[in-house]
Amino acid sequence: MSFSLKNIISIKDFSKDDINFILKQTEKLEPVARSQEMSQNMAGKILGMMFYEPSTRTRLSFETSMKRLGGGVIGFAETGASSVTKGENLADTARMVAEYADALVIRHNLEGAARYVSDIVDVPIINAGDGAGQHPTQTLLDIYTMKRVFGKIKGLNVALIGDLKYGRTVHSLSYALGMFGAKMSFVSPPELKMPQETLHDLKGAKAVTRETDNIHDVLDEVDVLYVTRIQKERFPDPEEYSRIKGAYLINSELLNGKDLIVMHPLPRVDEISPDVDDTKYGKYFEQAFYGVPVRMAILNALIKSF
Amino acid sequence: MSFSLKNIISIKDFSKDDINFILKQTEKLEPVARSQEMSQNMAGKILGMMFYEPSTRTRLSFETSMKRLGGGVIGFAETGASSVTKGENLADTARMVAEYADALVIRHNLEGAARYVSDIVDVPIINAGDGAGQHPTQTLLDIYTMKRVFGKIKGLNVALIGDLKYGRTVHSLSYALGMFGAKMSFVSPPELKMPQETLHDLKGAKAVTRETDNIHDVLDEVDVLYVTRIQKERFPDPEEYSRIKGAYLINSELLNGKDLIVMHPLPRVDEISPDVDDTKYGKYFEQAFYGVPVRMAILNALIKSF
Amino acid sequence: MSFSLKNIISIKDFSKDDINFILKQTEKLEPVARSQEMSQNMAGKILGMMFYEPSTRTRLSFETSMKRLGGGVIGFAETGASSVTKGENLADTARMVAEYADALVIRHNLEGAARYVSDIVDVPIINAGDGAGQHPTQTLLDIYTMKRVFGKIKGLNVALIGDLKYGRTVHSLSYALGMFGAKMSFVSPPELKMPQETLHDLKGAKAVTRETDNIHDVLDEVDVLYVTRIQKERFPDPEEYSRIKGAYLINSELLNGKDLIVMHPLPRVDEISPDVDDTKYGKYFEQAFYGVPVRMAILNALIKSF
Repeated sequence: MSFSLKNIISIKDFSKDDINFILKQTEKLEPVARSQEMSQNMAGKILGMMFYEPSTRTRLSFETSMKRLGGGVIGFAETGASSVTKGENLADTARMVAEYADALVIRHNLEGAARYVSDIVDVPIINAGDGAGQHPTQTLLDIYTMKRVFGKIKGLNVALIGDLKYGRTVHSLSYALGMFGAKMSFVSPPELKMPQETLHDLKGAKAVTRETDNIHDVLDEVDVLYVTRIQKERFPDPEEYSRIKGAYLINSELLNGKDLIVMHPLPRVDEISPDVDDTKYGKYFEQAFYGVPVRMAILNALIKSF
Repeated sequence: MSFSLKNIISIKDFSKDDINFILKQTEKLEPVARSQEMSQNMAGKILGMMFYEPSTRTRLSFETSMKRLGGGVIGFAETGASSVTKGENLADTARMVAEYADALVIRHNLEGAARYVSDIVDVPIINAGDGAGQHPTQTLLDIYTMKRVFGKIKGLNVALIGDLKYGRTVHSLSYALGMFGAKMSFVSPPELKMPQETLHDLKGAKAVTRETDNIHDVLDEVDVLYVTRIQKERFPDPEEYSRIKGAYLINSELLNGKDLIVMHPLPRVDEISPDVDDTKYGKYFEQAFYGVPVRMAILNALIKSF
Repeated sequence: MSFSLKNIISIKDFSKDDINFILKQTEKLEPVARSQEMSQNMAGKILGMMFYEPSTRTRLSFETSMKRLGGGVIGFAETGASSVTKGENLADTARMVAEYADALVIRHNLEGAARYVSDIVDVPIINAGDGAGQHPTQTLLDIYTMKRVFGKIKGLNVALIGDLKYGRTVHSLSYALGMFGAKMSFVSPPELKMPQETLHDLKGAKAVTRETDNIHDVLDEVDVLYVTRIQKERFPDPEEYSRIKGAYLINSELLNGKDLIVMHPLPRVDEISPDVDDTKYGKYFEQAFYGVPVRMAILNALIKSF
């Protein structure tokens, strides 16, 4: 088993072997991420972070991954304190940081930004979210979480819930779930349905999917409720927004007696009630933790240690 | 001698043994903080910093402590570049950072924030200042400085000067000084006297204290002048503020011939004249330095190394 | 060969031996900067960064240098998240950071700021740009780049192009080039000529220089075109600015058939066309890379390792 990619741009670039390789390495790195074992595999190495959009979770988990492995991190978390304000373009900034670092992590508001940079510079590029595009390391940690809890992905029943139209997380995730033979239910208000293009792709890949706008249609049969936020801005009418938000609210009463786990890419606002947090259902903080060993696995795969 | 605390929330949680343990370890770590000896005790460990309020000194000295010990630091120094702007609440942010880090340092504008977080997450919490509440690591470094200079705390005469009403530093410090048997003079304008509640607590602990508004009442007998800033905002009348500020100004002329040291939690504005800096009296920069070995001692006490 | 300086404030403080020492050490550290060899020479050491003005390149390359050598970095990249906002002055902030760190890097908008701080604190100070003043580490990496490409500085023909009046880079660089016996052409619009004072200094040092406003006068004979930005703000008349900008634009058509390299301190805006980037002429990204081993050499020279 080996890893074939030089850059981590889109989950669509991954073969099943590539994903399995990362999942396997993640498992081995869990004790390091849990602070139970030490690895200094990245000592003397530098990760360059170029965050043109704010982020806490993705940025901090990449930093944690690199630093726990003994490596260093440079870069910017927003564009205020950098020459970006002097009008330097993305290409020049990326070339410059690439002269300093062993790999770059890029988050940008424009779709395609990470791919564009990977064509320009020599060091490996990791896409940490490009606008409405991809966020492949999120997908890998989502897949890892399910595999970790259920021991497999094949045959799992996964419901993706909420904003399936604009949420970049769910597009990548559905692709990966299809690749590994999970069955998917897409639960959303009609205004926020999974795009036709994604449905078409999934059909081409022979993925088993269905659509509904009623969460009660799926509660009895799914293994995973993957919840995403429904943003107020999508609805011109505040009352319509309130009605829909209520219909998709996950709380412990709704879950009572079911046999499933609840996941969320976080941050949540109020789509999952806090009364779920400490139940057997709530797996979203554990999921956030898995971001660390997954990203460690990716760093180890892309950056050659001494 | 051992250390009994899991979290560092309030100086009131400390037993005398706990404080003595930290003072002892601090002494051992001084050569590491002075860059004379190397320790990699925190290698592979991560400290999470959640600073909801700006701070230079506290933040940088925690970072220095962790990094000199070979550990890594993640987090945010202000809330701009983080998901806090997406509306995530303190509890969720803390849970998330706790998934990545071996301990959290929290500075927050609301009293009780650190205690609240310590009830939610499993990793140790260090309170780096919560509104008008506690700032226990500041108190520990203040105590260490006095112990270091005089060899003991018991029997020392310490004058706390300036804003004794709102200054969170002086409340914690007076509590600790009382515990170790120092005698205290509280020197402040009537508007900014030590709160009745604190005086009552100190009396209950049999601490020897007295109050005055005249700095000349104490100059001949004290070992330590602990100065804090008087903020302009406390006085509706600018002339009243000017008069009071002048009456509490510490300069070398005032100190000439006295046998005492001057301390200050910093940053100062103009309550201590720069002409004190390089005299035998001025100990506030040395005091700032001691923040590093004190915080090293705390990190070592809370985080298990490999 | 040894290094005589405690602080890096101005290139004028350097003897030829000092510069040669840094160049020699830089060469040895190149494999470390290229991530081919490991050095942990700065393990347990702390570099304090005080950036009162934003910067990407200088800040990130100092951070990279320190972190690749195993050291830690603390400080601030802008003044927002620090006590500077509470009105603390430069002297107090510097004294405080000096209590934590083994050396300080300072970038400030006021000329003389770094020298001023070096008189106050005990740890080594590195000037990373002080207003219209000096930026000595930039000069060292510029010199190193030329030495690296041509094997020598003596006898090289170097054209400095663009804003020679306000650009702090070119003043320091011309001084160093003169010291090592390079011949210089100063190419600028009349409004932005090299200051009389600098010309006078160079004459006193017996440097061979000439001035022209026409880039075509020098193209056939120079080894290095060192390009700097011409800022729009210098010209009251936008049309005049456009005309001049066009006359100093470097593109591959202009360079075709010439035997020279193009350097630039970066960031560029549009004074060098992107079509030069991947030609044999464009050396500015390589030049940016050399900032890392040069700064590693400086850190090693100033900070004693364990």
